[in-house]
Amino acid sequence: MNYKKIHLAERDMPTHWYNVVADMPNKPLPPLHPGTRQPVGPEDLAPLFPMELIKQEVTAERYVEIPDEIRRIYQLWRPTPLIRATNLEKALDTPAKIYYKYEGVSPSGSHKPNTAVAQAYYNKLEGVKRITTETGAGQWGTALSFACKQFGLECEVYMVRISYDQKPYRKLIMQSFGAQVFPSPSELTEAGRRILQQDPASSGSLGIAISEAIERAAGDPHTKYSLGSVLNHVLMHQTIIGQEAIKQLEYTGDFPDVVIAPLGGGSNFAGIAMPFLRYKLAEGRNVRCVAVEPASCPKLTKGAFKYDFGDTAGYTPLLPMYTLGHNFMPPSIHAGGLRYHGASVICSQLLKDGLMEAVALQQLECFRAGVLFAETEGILPAPEANHAIAQAIREAESAKQEGKARTILFNLCGHGHFDLQAYDDYFAGRLTDHYLTEEQLHANLGEIEVLQPVG
Amino acid sequence: MNYKKIHLAERDMPTHWYNVVADMPNKPLPPLHPGTRQPVGPEDLAPLFPMELIKQEVTAERYVEIPDEIRRIYQLWRPTPLIRATNLEKALDTPAKIYYKYEGVSPSGSHKPNTAVAQAYYNKLEGVKRITTETGAGQWGTALSFACKQFGLECEVYMVRISYDQKPYRKLIMQSFGAQVFPSPSELTEAGRRILQQDPASSGSLGIAISEAIERAAGDPHTKYSLGSVLNHVLMHQTIIGQEAIKQLEYTGDFPDVVIAPLGGGSNFAGIAMPFLRYKLAEGRNVRCVAVEPASCPKLTKGAFKYDFGDTAGYTPLLPMYTLGHNFMPPSIHAGGLRYHGASVICSQLLKDGLMEAVALQQLECFRAGVLFAETEGILPAPEANHAIAQAIREAESAKQEGKARTILFNLCGHGHFDLQAYDDYFAGRLTDHYLTEEQLHANLGEIEVLQPVG
Repeated sequence: MNYKKIHLAERDMPTHWYNVVADMPNKPLPPLHPGTRQPVGPEDLAPLFPMELIKQEVTAERYVEIPDEIRRIYQLWRPTPLIRATNLEKALDTPAKIYYKYEGVSPSGSHKPNTAVAQAYYNKLEGVKRITTETGAGQWGTALSFACKQFGLECEVYMVRISYDQKPYRKLIMQSFGAQVFPSPSELTEAGRRILQQDPASSGSLGIAISEAIERAAGDPHTKYSLGSVLNHVLMHQTIIGQEAIKQLEYTGDFPDVVIAPLGGGSNFAGIAMPFLRYKLAEGRNVRCVAVEPASCPKLTKGAFKYDFGDTAGYTPLLPMYTLGHNFMPPSIHAGGLRYHGASVICSQLLKDGLMEAVALQQLECFRAGVLFAETEGILPAPEANHAIAQAIREAESAKQEGKARTILFNLCGHGHFDLQAYDDYFAGRLTDHYLTEEQLHANLGEIEVLQPVG
Repeated sequence: MNYKKIHLAERDMPTHWYNVVADMPNKPLPPLHPGTRQPVGPEDLAPLFPMELIKQEVTAERYVEIPDEIRRIYQLWRPTPLIRATNLEKALDTPAKIYYKYEGVSPSGSHKPNTAVAQAYYNKLEGVKRITTETGAGQWGTALSFACKQFGLECEVYMVRISYDQKPYRKLIMQSFGAQVFPSPSELTEAGRRILQQDPASSGSLGIAISEAIERAAGDPHTKYSLGSVLNHVLMHQTIIGQEAIKQLEYTGDFPDVVIAPLGGGSNFAGIAMPFLRYKLAEGRNVRCVAVEPASCPKLTKGAFKYDFGDTAGYTPLLPMYTLGHNFMPPSIHAGGLRYHGASVICSQLLKDGLMEAVALQQLECFRAGVLFAETEGILPAPEANHAIAQAIREAESAKQEGKARTILFNLCGHGHFDLQAYDDYFAGRLTDHYLTEEQLHANLGEIEVLQPVG
């Protein structure tokens, strides 16, 4: 028998996070204050984030040490397995080798706890008592609930009303980890009350939930706010994924020709791809990094690179990124984690500089890929992860057509145990592909016309 | 940092299943034909099972080789991790070491595929085209669906109507693995039609579903039937769990003082305990094996040892076992896998001979244990698994009271991702303990009075 799963010993777990900014030829542009259009400083962010995370947000250091207490909690599920998709390869009859890094073994079933644990730790260190956040589908809220529990912090999750009603299981897991979960809009905040006054039956949105979570944090000195993607420090915390994968691939003697991950805000993609990108940036090694987005929310392939708000309501700093406009509303697709209008500043700059690639895929192809993966590899993937699988299959098929060996690595960022409604919709033929017109894609792009910092 | 998870290399996966019958001082009594009360022979079972499994059912060999093709599929998730519950130990402030073997990493999220894959393989080898089975909560049906898919077999699952309606996610996973799932009673069988004629709104029962699955298999030469617990060969297939655990514990230098698992039919318990029991039987080593049953279905602690039917309808051979009577209806509890009226013949004989122990626990204690486990170890357990955790906590607490070190091992047989309704009921205070009266416990025990084979 050949090996199938490559387990890294716990003592070989990476000791540092990798900060790709140190190796980027063009550094990211700074976030701007929406009023002054001047770069924001640490003091602007201090009401929301602990100082250690603000420092990580702007650090130029290449490696940031992972504190032992975080590593001790990572150890509950890390290092995660690297698995050779031998059965999928066989089903595709491809000469390509396909590897996947499986993050679904974490307490919340996705890669999200890698940053949630780190963020909870630094908040605890600064004496914070409570962390607020928003959650859409519930993946991020679950991860943060678990992380807060580890440090005895309270966790307050504002969950988009429609998900709160339609995904009761997600809410239940957060409660099992001790979090308080409120449907958003709620009566607990000004922002929530304002919406409810206008529309008592509002089904909510991620934008509203962010506003509520931020308002709660800003109004209480013992409460801070936490974000599950997009920001530099969040991307950095995820790089433990790719660093582990590099060590695991050393056992096989392989190095990937292409590294693939879904991209919603950017932390999933950055987590696996950045440590490999380092080999390209520092050593000129030939490795393609491919971000996969849904065709229904194609900011990387169809958006514009400009300053835009990170949230719908326009409360955040302006961020220089690929965006479809902060009021862009994607058609409802089941990969809720990929419906974000913009991409992280780091990923946006790398794409602009031609150092990574992006591709937009339709959802039916992605679900087809996910079902084939479940049948052959025995893991039912999260709909977000299906995007990476579909692209890995494309790469494997092109290897077959060219009759060439190729090593493919993708991030299986989570399992689909709480996404079965989406599979039911797929099997029942209720899902469709989405072809957006140029008009739909560009309708929200003219709102903000800031291309650079003032001065 | 100390180790937390012990991964066994794939090349060290056990090559044989262990058959405890070879080492039992008193061999199990034979199953009897319900008409003649004579021991049943292979020809009686041939319409339902492939000959290789019938041979395994009666073999006296100590070790049966695991075919390479089965090991290749096991490799998708095996060897499973052995994990030291360091965080739980800390929360309990106990001098005991607690280890758990985690079977939730399998494609169906429980230990069930260990036998499902083996059974599908031997059916395939004999040219069978389709396997039928029943499922209650859905764990077994999911495992068999996955296993059939690996060998290109059709899988027909009769799912108890009330679960079919209340647990749509379980049905969806089975369908994702390509199975046909029918609510039972169905119009597809005589047995089903008869019930529906009497009660068109029947919510079904495991007994009815078994009858339907058996009827379909018996009526078609290309179709066989498969059972997920109770039978000798099923127990044997699960012993890969305990054998792996032995090898993993060698790395730590520990040997368990006590091995704990839930007992529904017996395969979960036998899977982890039998390989350790061998040390007791063959070498006189001091290791306690403790089966945990729910107080609402206490066949081991309150039942009688006698010949009884394996199913409610009385279609199966008579089996010599601890039973509450085949018409015993336990109060509805959420650990659906533990509601079976009898215990496997092997476990019953071992208990009768004082070679294993049994304890019955109330469900609130079990859920409390499960929530503490999720908070500390980051895995939300299946309600069945909570029974083992609760007993492990009892053992750890008694070690603390005695001020003595103790090594505890339990089988974490599955995750609770599809059992969140049960946790919701627990958090909402809708669950209660069950105290059965002697009358309730013994009401169904007088039906069959066969104590030994004829002649």
